[in-house]
Amino acid sequence: MRSLRALLTALGVLLLAFLLVGLGWAGTRVWRALDWEQLEETADLARKANELAWMGRQALSQEARAPNLVLILFDDLGLGDLGSHGNRLVSTPAMDRLAGEGMVFDAYYAPAPVCTPSRAGLLTGRWPVRTTLTEVVFPTGHPVDWLQRSAHQPVRLPADEITLAEALRAGGYATAAIGKWHLGDHSPSLPRNLGFEEYFGVLYSNDMSPFALWHDEAIIAPDPVDQATLTPRYTRQAVRFIEAHANEPFFLYLAHTFPHIPLHATADQAGTSPAGLYGDVVSDLDRSVGIVVETLEALGLSEQTLVVVTSDNGPWFQGSPSTFRGRKSDTFEGGMRVPFIARWPGRVPAGLRTRTVAAGVDVFPTFLGIAGVPLPRDRLIDGVDLMPVLSGSASEAETRPIFYYSGDELQAVRLGRFKWQAARRLSYGKVPGLPFFGSVERGPWLFDLEDDAGEAYDVSDFHPDAFARLAAIARTHEREVARAPRGWKPR
Amino acid sequence: MRSLRALLTALGVLLLAFLLVGLGWAGTRVWRALDWEQLEETADLARKANELAWMGRQALSQEARAPNLVLILFDDLGLGDLGSHGNRLVSTPAMDRLAGEGMVFDAYYAPAPVCTPSRAGLLTGRWPVRTTLTEVVFPTGHPVDWLQRSAHQPVRLPADEITLAEALRAGGYATAAIGKWHLGDHSPSLPRNLGFEEYFGVLYSNDMSPFALWHDEAIIAPDPVDQATLTPRYTRQAVRFIEAHANEPFFLYLAHTFPHIPLHATADQAGTSPAGLYGDVVSDLDRSVGIVVETLEALGLSEQTLVVVTSDNGPWFQGSPSTFRGRKSDTFEGGMRVPFIARWPGRVPAGLRTRTVAAGVDVFPTFLGIAGVPLPRDRLIDGVDLMPVLSGSASEAETRPIFYYSGDELQAVRLGRFKWQAARRLSYGKVPGLPFFGSVERGPWLFDLEDDAGEAYDVSDFHPDAFARLAAIARTHEREVARAPRGWKPR
Repeated sequence: MRSLRALLTALGVLLLAFLLVGLGWAGTRVWRALDWEQLEETADLARKANELAWMGRQALSQEARAPNLVLILFDDLGLGDLGSHGNRLVSTPAMDRLAGEGMVFDAYYAPAPVCTPSRAGLLTGRWPVRTTLTEVVFPTGHPVDWLQRSAHQPVRLPADEITLAEALRAGGYATAAIGKWHLGDHSPSLPRNLGFEEYFGVLYSNDMSPFALWHDEAIIAPDPVDQATLTPRYTRQAVRFIEAHANEPFFLYLAHTFPHIPLHATADQAGTSPAGLYGDVVSDLDRSVGIVVETLEALGLSEQTLVVVTSDNGPWFQGSPSTFRGRKSDTFEGGMRVPFIARWPGRVPAGLRTRTVAAGVDVFPTFLGIAGVPLPRDRLIDGVDLMPVLSGSASEAETRPIFYYSGDELQAVRLGRFKWQAARRLSYGKVPGLPFFGSVERGPWLFDLEDDAGEAYDVSDFHPDAFARLAAIARTHEREVARAPRGWKPR
Repeated sequence: MRSLRALLTALGVLLLAFLLVGLGWAGTRVWRALDWEQLEETADLARKANELAWMGRQALSQEARAPNLVLILFDDLGLGDLGSHGNRLVSTPAMDRLAGEGMVFDAYYAPAPVCTPSRAGLLTGRWPVRTTLTEVVFPTGHPVDWLQRSAHQPVRLPADEITLAEALRAGGYATAAIGKWHLGDHSPSLPRNLGFEEYFGVLYSNDMSPFALWHDEAIIAPDPVDQATLTPRYTRQAVRFIEAHANEPFFLYLAHTFPHIPLHATADQAGTSPAGLYGDVVSDLDRSVGIVVETLEALGLSEQTLVVVTSDNGPWFQGSPSTFRGRKSDTFEGGMRVPFIARWPGRVPAGLRTRTVAAGVDVFPTFLGIAGVPLPRDRLIDGVDLMPVLSGSASEAETRPIFYYSGDELQAVRLGRFKWQAARRLSYGKVPGLPFFGSVERGPWLFDLEDDAGEAYDVSDFHPDAFARLAAIARTHEREVARAPRGWKPR
């Protein structure tokens, strides 16, 4: 009896100790979650302000009037989803026309294979890892948001990043963001904190809630918004913005909510596409592109406006990655190789396709170059100015690397025709009622994207020199990022 | 002090209770693992013996001498890996020649998207779910084997299944299995327990250990076998078997170990393929096919031998699923749509491609038909006799369903041009240091494989009738399997 009592007490001490350790761990997580925002506010905003002021002073457009810039971004649209890209089921006449009047990139890479970091890269001209925002973010208060904060994982674009909108605004542009934001849902990372004078849209993906429609800082349609109305609403707002700023240089960032799931088509489009609801939704988006282009034409602005149409990453559960391997969230080509169409009558030759490797981080320097705004001097910009390619004068030489990240893990590097994929341990197999078991080490691999676009064959032994060269580029890049994570430059 | 003591005692009781419940649970698992084999031996082997005896008595070949049957199975070879199937990197002259002299199926489905159930379906003519063997099995004693037994999950082909070898042997055939088995590594589910008079090979995948080479019941090369020698060893044994049985009808089941990973090429092939090591290995396999075919020719057996070349499932980490979506273990087309080449000079027209839908379960009735052996009457056989198609006389009408299983879960059904995919909840997203979070319900979907072979667009709303028809077929099939899991028929 006494020994049982002693045993029970000992077990009780053990359990109590476990509980206390558990509580301590949870408390630490909570503290870190609460603490994170303050930590981050050590950002040097004065330096950023100075840099923007300098960029503004140096801004000098080569045009009599700086050209307008329209950047239309789709969410999860695939490379194979457009008629101009070989699709025979989805009807996209407006974009097909745009492709015919402009230049189509066959090897354009979104900056990341998922929404948030892709947008971070697109709007800063830097690989997302430099912005710290490498994972998809969730609405404030969402359990995942809480978990991310407790792991000190960034949940919004840091305020010391310079966005495309801030840079262009320094150069005298009117700026608007319409549509999905997904770079943080609270100050100081809201669109109007980061250079957009006007905002109209939804702060994150359409599978997250609360899903409310904002105009600047006010909710104009509360959760849940009728998603079938979103594309027309965004489009009307875009038209309004263009019309209101027809007489000054403007930058319109129109970031559609679709074809991210859940899919919702407008009433008149629903049920009409032989590609099903996905096709209906893409046709809605195509109509929106058509309306924007017609608005520019009606205002006589076509020849002073560069229109770019692209996607934030490859298609998710539906949609076509063309013949490429992988989909959204993969660092195989299908995850990041997306449409990129650029149309600028008189400046970009009509009907050309280019195999030049390009990336979302190139939009920042390209647009700044067109606007006559210099690049910030205080930070690394990863993108290159695509204007030589767009004007048809550049060769197809491919000397710049593409970095494929999953979160903050560098998984692949492309240089020229070759792509290096890092070794990874993948889980597989299952026993009913138990978690995944077993894993296999795969890679490192070398793919020859020219002969093997589907990434089926590791040719590292057949091309050992290329393999070594790309692996070295990956190592150098990783070292450089480890040494200077944010890529600040000394002044 | 007394209340602390009481608290600790209470906590101790709690922990003790937890420990006892945990021990009880583990004990149950252990008991079930030990118990499983006995349970299974309630199989009615007398009925099977009677049925095989009846089949033997009824066997009546329409040929003067029953034709030979050679079934060459690759492990994880993709639909796009052969020159005959559009590949321009991998050199496969022997199989290209076979394709030119025989018939190529463009819509042949392996019975399952992973090794073990695929082989169970191939050798029984039944969808794997009916054999109970729906998951990959591991060497006896492997932790996963233990977990599977403790979950009462089958780890070998039940002894009451009738295999292709048993049926053909009843019809007077000499039989041999050479290569990978993977249907259980102990009696009564070894190759020689299930109708193969001769066995030479490795009992499971080449990423499992111990990896020893067996000849009948003896290990002739202990773990670890030099894997680079396997393909030539299998080939020599196949040649020996053919030569030894040149004067009687024979069935050769040559199930290669490759291109399953880890890849090993023969010394003279290594480093020669522009598709890298995978290409080297496939060229090794191709050379093996060439040697087998030349052996038949040298013995004057070509016109009395049907040679079939196929794969157990789609390609895994490397290899090409052609332009189809998914890979090994997926129920998208890339997981189960694999090469199927049938060559029989004088009986199968040369150089034809067929779009007729066929499946691995068809091999059993097709081979039995050729051998003049009737189908067993005591069980459901899912396959159909392909001889009308092979002889070029059948239309392309597609009225038979294909069932796509992942384990024992029906995930998709194909009928004609349409494919229904069941709704599934998929996990996605991650927080560093935490398990996967978040999930999304996708499907049910309907794909139009004719217009959308890449399975990009759910057209369930555009083709509601087809969607309802296929969903009903799926429900009926699931009900039938639930009612009679093994598909026994009353006698």
